[in-house]
Amino acid sequence: MDTEASGFNTNETVAIIGLGLMGGSFARGLRRIGTKHIIAVDTDEKALQKAKQEGMVDEVYTTGSTALRRARMIIFCTATAVMIRFLAEHKTCFAPGTIVTDVAGIKGDTADAIKALLPEGVDFIPGHPMAGREGKGYAMASADIFNNANYILVPMPENKENHLLAVTSMAMALGCAHVVRVSPEKHDRFIAYTSCLPHVLATALVNSESMDPMTKYFVAGSFRDGTRVADINAALWTSLFLANKENLVHEIDCFRKALTDFSTMLSDEDAEGMTRFLQQAAARRRDLVYETHSR
Amino acid sequence: MDTEASGFNTNETVAIIGLGLMGGSFARGLRRIGTKHIIAVDTDEKALQKAKQEGMVDEVYTTGSTALRRARMIIFCTATAVMIRFLAEHKTCFAPGTIVTDVAGIKGDTADAIKALLPEGVDFIPGHPMAGREGKGYAMASADIFNNANYILVPMPENKENHLLAVTSMAMALGCAHVVRVSPEKHDRFIAYTSCLPHVLATALVNSESMDPMTKYFVAGSFRDGTRVADINAALWTSLFLANKENLVHEIDCFRKALTDFSTMLSDEDAEGMTRFLQQAAARRRDLVYETHSR
Repeated sequence: MDTEASGFNTNETVAIIGLGLMGGSFARGLRRIGTKHIIAVDTDEKALQKAKQEGMVDEVYTTGSTALRRARMIIFCTATAVMIRFLAEHKTCFAPGTIVTDVAGIKGDTADAIKALLPEGVDFIPGHPMAGREGKGYAMASADIFNNANYILVPMPENKENHLLAVTSMAMALGCAHVVRVSPEKHDRFIAYTSCLPHVLATALVNSESMDPMTKYFVAGSFRDGTRVADINAALWTSLFLANKENLVHEIDCFRKALTDFSTMLSDEDAEGMTRFLQQAAARRRDLVYETHSR
Repeated sequence: MDTEASGFNTNETVAIIGLGLMGGSFARGLRRIGTKHIIAVDTDEKALQKAKQEGMVDEVYTTGSTALRRARMIIFCTATAVMIRFLAEHKTCFAPGTIVTDVAGIKGDTADAIKALLPEGVDFIPGHPMAGREGKGYAMASADIFNNANYILVPMPENKENHLLAVTSMAMALGCAHVVRVSPEKHDRFIAYTSCLPHVLATALVNSESMDPMTKYFVAGSFRDGTRVADINAALWTSLFLANKENLVHEIDCFRKALTDFSTMLSDEDAEGMTRFLQQAAARRRDLVYETHSR
């Protein structure tokens, strides 16, 4: 293995397609770790100019450009459908030897479709940084979203090990705590629980009929934190939820079961059972935090 | 109205009964705003000594003391049952003219019982700072929990207005954003939604049968934030939940209804309905944050 090629080299050009919350956060993070040259592509000219003025990107395009052939790595930070359209329309923009990766939150069986659109020799590595924040758009981008985050790779059989290591090194350099590799099936199953479900719970909590104009004077940290991601990109998450429907329906059912266990004990005034339930939750939450060095 | 007496005066002595997470946070906050003399009572001698060494409190007792008669304000940061026992056993520790307040998360009809135990002329003002954090005990105390927090007063008909203003001034000086006054019934109803329910959801989320040893590599911010308060004081919250049983059962039902609305749309692949649901959630969450200047 060529160790020089296996790391992530800040002297090599990186391109970001889609300069929204995720793409902008990659730009900010990559600049912070010293990446010399960053190309950005987005249809939003204002976002491109803002990022350039801030010194976060160096070269900007509102559509595909052969300038992308100079990139060692191209990171797609768009919806999967947008990525597929872009690849179909801009085949000449991708040079053999380039690493192409993405950030799509649900993998399903999209990798083969994407791979089929790329020229021979371009290595597509499906990725999913478990990083984000409320809101959307470049204005909400932050390099800090990668701090202590998990970064998931969903490798294809053809991926070169040194390319997988390059994405891994980039993730670690951005501040991520763990980079794991899993199959697309496992990825989507885990994500239904750890990401889709918390978003559903947060939105259902603020959408309860109990919400009224006085509520704001009674909220505490638990409500604020529990609803942070309720400020959601509705179109994006609708498509993510639908793409992971079977798994998410299953996770909602599992959650409902745990909630019913608790509410039955509450109705029965089973203090011992409730205490056990809460003690188990506290222990599980502490394990999770200490293991992942949570932010 | 005596304006001099209506404010909170840092030259007057404050006593804190119960130096755990809440009591310790009051001590830290009161010291930060310049309170000259703070008395602390707790059965945990180690916590008392630590707080004294850190300069957060000045005078410490492991049981009731007539030193409390020197306090202008006494803040009970214990479970209501502990407070009631303390009042019954230490009647001579309370001087007429003293303000006694508490932080109990559920009010029910406890105020009259507490009032009945206090000597004539001691003004009991039920309070509830909507502030807290994960964990428990003095080691987890932080003055920052009051920043931008809501602080609820549940006045009794006998309360003197200048005493209510003194607690209000203290809350604002500690960094709270709003101090509201409501009846005990309204308090408990709001709290079931804004505080009890988020704690139930957080604990049910980590208690789902989907949690497994690999989960930690797949969690993102939404799961971390949504489960922050799952690291819960099990005994304390079991009693709070039971004390607010009727309201909490109702809130769990309202939440279940919102969750079912969403999961039905997901099962039906009703993308339009899902998008509307998420848009409403985003708008509600943004209203909440901008209105309360959330941390």
